[in-house]
Amino acid sequence: MRKNGVREIWEGGGKVVNGWLAIPDSISAEVMARSGLDSVTIDMQHGLVEYQAAVTMLQAISITDATPMARVPWNDPIPIMKMLDAGAYGIICPMVNNREECERFVGACRYAPAGYRSFGPARAAMYAGADYAANANSSVITMAMIETAEAMENLEAIMSVEGLDAVYVGPTDLSISLGHAPGTKGASLEPVADNVIAAIDEILSMAAKKGIKTGIQCTSGDGVRDKFQKGFDLGTIAGDLRLLAAGAAADIKAARS
Amino acid sequence: MRKNGVREIWEGGGKVVNGWLAIPDSISAEVMARSGLDSVTIDMQHGLVEYQAAVTMLQAISITDATPMARVPWNDPIPIMKMLDAGAYGIICPMVNNREECERFVGACRYAPAGYRSFGPARAAMYAGADYAANANSSVITMAMIETAEAMENLEAIMSVEGLDAVYVGPTDLSISLGHAPGTKGASLEPVADNVIAAIDEILSMAAKKGIKTGIQCTSGDGVRDKFQKGFDLGTIAGDLRLLAAGAAADIKAARS
Amino acid sequence: MRKNGVREIWEGGGKVVNGWLAIPDSISAEVMARSGLDSVTIDMQHGLVEYQAAVTMLQAISITDATPMARVPWNDPIPIMKMLDAGAYGIICPMVNNREECERFVGACRYAPAGYRSFGPARAAMYAGADYAANANSSVITMAMIETAEAMENLEAIMSVEGLDAVYVGPTDLSISLGHAPGTKGASLEPVADNVIAAIDEILSMAAKKGIKTGIQCTSGDGVRDKFQKGFDLGTIAGDLRLLAAGAAADIKAARS
Amino acid sequence: MRKNGVREIWEGGGKVVNGWLAIPDSISAEVMARSGLDSVTIDMQHGLVEYQAAVTMLQAISITDATPMARVPWNDPIPIMKMLDAGAYGIICPMVNNREECERFVGACRYAPAGYRSFGPARAAMYAGADYAANANSSVITMAMIETAEAMENLEAIMSVEGLDAVYVGPTDLSISLGHAPGTKGASLEPVADNVIAAIDEILSMAAKKGIKTGIQCTSGDGVRDKFQKGFDLGTIAGDLRLLAAGAAADIKAARS
Amino acid sequence: MRKNGVREIWEGGGKVVNGWLAIPDSISAEVMARSGLDSVTIDMQHGLVEYQAAVTMLQAISITDATPMARVPWNDPIPIMKMLDAGAYGIICPMVNNREECERFVGACRYAPAGYRSFGPARAAMYAGADYAANANSSVITMAMIETAEAMENLEAIMSVEGLDAVYVGPTDLSISLGHAPGTKGASLEPVADNVIAAIDEILSMAAKKGIKTGIQCTSGDGVRDKFQKGFDLGTIAGDLRLLAAGAAADIKAARS
Amino acid sequence: MRKNGVREIWEGGGKVVNGWLAIPDSISAEVMARSGLDSVTIDMQHGLVEYQAAVTMLQAISITDATPMARVPWNDPIPIMKMLDAGAYGIICPMVNNREECERFVGACRYAPAGYRSFGPARAAMYAGADYAANANSSVITMAMIETAEAMENLEAIMSVEGLDAVYVGPTDLSISLGHAPGTKGASLEPVADNVIAAIDEILSMAAKKGIKTGIQCTSGDGVRDKFQKGFDLGTIAGDLRLLAAGAAADIKAARS
Repeated sequence: MRKNGVREIWEGGGKVVNGWLAIPDSISAEVMARSGLDSVTIDMQHGLVEYQAAVTMLQAISITDATPMARVPWNDPIPIMKMLDAGAYGIICPMVNNREECERFVGACRYAPAGYRSFGPARAAMYAGADYAANANSSVITMAMIETAEAMENLEAIMSVEGLDAVYVGPTDLSISLGHAPGTKGASLEPVADNVIAAIDEILSMAAKKGIKTGIQCTSGDGVRDKFQKGFDLGTIAGDLRLLAAGAAADIKAARS
Repeated sequence: MRKNGVREIWEGGGKVVNGWLAIPDSISAEVMARSGLDSVTIDMQHGLVEYQAAVTMLQAISITDATPMARVPWNDPIPIMKMLDAGAYGIICPMVNNREECERFVGACRYAPAGYRSFGPARAAMYAGADYAANANSSVITMAMIETAEAMENLEAIMSVEGLDAVYVGPTDLSISLGHAPGTKGASLEPVADNVIAAIDEILSMAAKKGIKTGIQCTSGDGVRDKFQKGFDLGTIAGDLRLLAAGAAADIKAARS
Repeated sequence: MRKNGVREIWEGGGKVVNGWLAIPDSISAEVMARSGLDSVTIDMQHGLVEYQAAVTMLQAISITDATPMARVPWNDPIPIMKMLDAGAYGIICPMVNNREECERFVGACRYAPAGYRSFGPARAAMYAGADYAANANSSVITMAMIETAEAMENLEAIMSVEGLDAVYVGPTDLSISLGHAPGTKGASLEPVADNVIAAIDEILSMAAKKGIKTGIQCTSGDGVRDKFQKGFDLGTIAGDLRLLAAGAAADIKAARS
Repeated sequence: MRKNGVREIWEGGGKVVNGWLAIPDSISAEVMARSGLDSVTIDMQHGLVEYQAAVTMLQAISITDATPMARVPWNDPIPIMKMLDAGAYGIICPMVNNREECERFVGACRYAPAGYRSFGPARAAMYAGADYAANANSSVITMAMIETAEAMENLEAIMSVEGLDAVYVGPTDLSISLGHAPGTKGASLEPVADNVIAAIDEILSMAAKKGIKTGIQCTSGDGVRDKFQKGFDLGTIAGDLRLLAAGAAADIKAARS
Repeated sequence: MRKNGVREIWEGGGKVVNGWLAIPDSISAEVMARSGLDSVTIDMQHGLVEYQAAVTMLQAISITDATPMARVPWNDPIPIMKMLDAGAYGIICPMVNNREECERFVGACRYAPAGYRSFGPARAAMYAGADYAANANSSVITMAMIETAEAMENLEAIMSVEGLDAVYVGPTDLSISLGHAPGTKGASLEPVADNVIAAIDEILSMAAKKGIKTGIQCTSGDGVRDKFQKGFDLGTIAGDLRLLAAGAAADIKAARS
Repeated sequence: MRKNGVREIWEGGGKVVNGWLAIPDSISAEVMARSGLDSVTIDMQHGLVEYQAAVTMLQAISITDATPMARVPWNDPIPIMKMLDAGAYGIICPMVNNREECERFVGACRYAPAGYRSFGPARAAMYAGADYAANANSSVITMAMIETAEAMENLEAIMSVEGLDAVYVGPTDLSISLGHAPGTKGASLEPVADNVIAAIDEILSMAAKKGIKTGIQCTSGDGVRDKFQKGFDLGTIAGDLRLLAAGAAADIKAARS
């Protein structure tokens, strides 16, 4: 089976630089996947992407060595199983608030008896090879998003679910859930509020205790480096929409200067 | 009729900062069009875009004040007329080598008696307003690309074609046509060879003499500013593919530093 | 933040003429949005439209002043949140039968602490402006469909949910649920049965008592005017499919007469 | 081979009521094709439709008895042959100005020795049946558009081309070519200028003399009936865009009255 | 109403040869539907197909006499109702494990009072005819997949749900659920393990007792014939992906021999 | 630069087994490309494929080692250059009848001074690597189709064009052009008529004399093997449409036996 690059990096003690795709197109996906990222995540929650476009994006990513992952729109077996069958090697699941929800998520990623994933890896078996069926359960990465006050209360329970590989921090939703109004400085991808920073520290500690990996959404390469230094195992650089908007704005400013 | 922003800027003596779209998607188009560009050009020649995607991109650009333009794949009435009917306010036509070709191009953009454009502005009349038909000939911008040795020989004849609003320099093709091998430093978007630089100067002089505008493909905002200082009236910043690739590379480098 | 036109009309005491889109295409969407409608609703339940097409339709509607709304296929957070992130300013949710379902629906439309909407308004913030995050909760319109006998029993409880802006009557489903067989005259978009008419009156009365707005599906402009006179605040004219079919049929009849 | 309905009607002495598709979608195409039209033409010239969407529209039309036709964007073998291979049973070709152009058009629709159509009716043979190859030359309908002053001068030569089945009048382009400015009353789909009316009469006379059929673009069923009375064999009712816009406008007016 | 071909064959005592579509394209769908199959099922679970593509595939199938069906991705009212509204005449629902789940599935396919399907058969009424509404409940076929150990325990309860027309066996998932590891010979579409074979026999017996029909996924025409002989009423031949891969492999082998 | 597999096989004295894609979808393209073929050709002439779909198909082929090629719809620089920029490594051009046409075709595939290809390999440089520009002229394969009586008369002139790598025989069109009616046994992909067989022999002889390669369209692997034995360097197995139709028909027959 084609190796899961993220798992390999982690097993080698390394850090994963992750890209983020919100544009529903296979060309922008290929450009991002060829840029040197370790993994590329298709954002089906807040990105403008649904399944049919995501399939062509997975194909584009498959040309490269970047590991294909997907952030699904919700803890729902349909997008989870469909994206796995289409060849995603990792799933980031939003809004996992307690053990039961985490079990539901992880179970959707694992064949019985470890879970309840239905069998039919139509494209995954092409991408991974003929032995996908035998190895999928131990290869596919499961990342539960921790982004609510409720999740913070159930942190240990969530992280104790067998088969969970990592947690992924969504700083904005976590900040909002911890009392900071949307649109304020407190509720941004770069957390500044004390209780949010403390929550993130707690997540890192608990993950270390439970032996699972940690990832976090950032807005820049600098942010990722900082989070790596804090201990995170995976960090997401600016997404494709942000790269386009910021790059164009910088060029326009230079042109008019 | 909705004003043609590029024409307005030019009439006011200003310079046009132009964007470039090679990703066949309406979301990336909207992000680019919202970034503050004066105009946005859909590249149907070397971009990965064909008509059906371009229509949704024109709709996305229409949300903003950026002027929608298209670089057609060839001097062919089909893409020229179809893009005008879909609402493009300017056409950049590649490989215009002599007067006859320029007349063919400009004629495709003008209703009789000025040209031979067929009538049926299905979406253009929505975008522009009910008086589009009466004003299209004087509003739609025609830009002929000067990018071959043959065109250099026919510069005055090309620029003398009635109805031609501007020329647009394609530095790489021009360099190749002037003897510099593809893939060498001589054949890049930022021309360095003497004969190419001289040719570009000649284009600027002849355009000034003929009273038409000039545009040029660049790779950055700095390049556009330089070309503005040289006298160009329109400059194209880094395209969407380049912005994505360069932005991601910079973020990855920072993350790993 | 770009104003929500439907909310503005209602605050000014006016009535909203709403359009209905079942064709999964951005061109037909633009034609409808340009026709003078106050709002245009993408029907993702019974229309032939899913998310990816809906995004391009939202872009097309954004060119105009018509307020973009969506009827989601079910009371499910995935389509609700995805359509809001894509720029819908109002959600019509089918089959809201009791208080708990209504809370689930409204909560999906509101950021914490008012609800559980996840943060990431990728395109909504482009459409609305940078202050979308701060104002979305008070701007986005929530309309629960009342279309079952169970909903009639829970009318007051449903309409008491905080954050619910309006109810929307689905006459056909309501008729079927109240005992009229599908395909009969009793189960049509123009209700004729006494118990359905009585139910609709009850909805209007309860909404007036609770201070929320009312909308209803009609089949023609005449139907909308009649419903306005009855007290409804929003009425939906014939959908795009019906306009096409009826218009073509009339033309054919005339041609052959 | 599945019969060509248009040819059958004409052979029976009847008139053809034709529909017009500018929306690039298979659902709107199916609604139109089911409305009772004799034939449905996909407008690839001024409509917002290109080949890939047109294929799904041809499939939708194939569900019904309406004869599928296409107006190609230009007298170019690529769209002509591709649409025939995809199952179009008739081609309307714009801007046929002289005998040579007409021969080029007709030749693209006929296999050797009658023409130079390349063999490979991938979907046409599915739609028509296994004997398509043997019968295509005598079944596929060729309609040359007469819409310029030059074409009027070459009327007899054009209509003398062997294999041409019909001419199709484009009143707006014809009016513009005959001296009436675009956007004026003189240049509309319902011709009013004397020289245009005279030209149309001349077309009818010459077609009668040459024994070929005649079609014309109209804006309504009434217009088609009038043209039938004048002698035309095929008339096109209001297109899909017009039906939507007019239908919505009428409903809105009624709703607000 | 257009007859449901599968129901007709079953009522006539016949067997149904079913095709399987995993390629999200209307051309491959049309080729399959024209091949002589009794029914064609769009696989939205493990196939690479989502709703918007499925709609064009349903249109393609509608050209032929093959009965259109869909395997939905999960027991969820959204895909079930949307596919029925789009014209599917049968739904195969995965992972039906007990009576309650079966009732939820069947209810989504039936209008009240038999179920809770929402009314709005936008395309189904085109495909079926004006009397669709009155006859849909008795025509649309419901097939619950039996593919888990839990379902085996609840076999009688599941098959006792009113309105359930048939069960459909998913041999691979059933094998995995009964203890055979994915990727082993025990967990294949052609069951070999004793307990799986016994389970399948039990399904056939219970279905016979309950008077409902039975279908099963196979990998070849031979497999279907064998299953017919065992008593199944519907068998699925090799899917489109398998036909392509196997056909190409055979041709390559021959070419290189 | 990524090697051109077809060129490598030929340089090693081997034969190329080529696949043929007429389904406009990236999933079927990936299945075909993974089947073991040496090269895969997207048929944009008689296949149901246009550029935008072809781009996603090229991406799918890029996942594998199969060499991506395209048969363009006509000898026109637009599809030729666009497909090369999108990453095709070979172009098969239909209807090359004489030296001038062959020069026009080959010139469109080569940068100056060898030809007039415009520079901008947006995706080709991603697929091939940074040195694409320098090596494209010597790597990209040009194949002219010989399929008319006129081409037979100009065989030596056509094959003498510098930069032409190979000719490709289209047996059906050649047969029709040589006097065999379409739809007869004489005009099939497996030529039987004496004059066609003689013409094919002549093509092989002339190609040997001129030192260029030869390819031919077949309908099966057996046909390819036979043509290899005759001397052809490339043979095309049954296309995707034929594989699907034949495979389904065989399975249905077995199921019903």
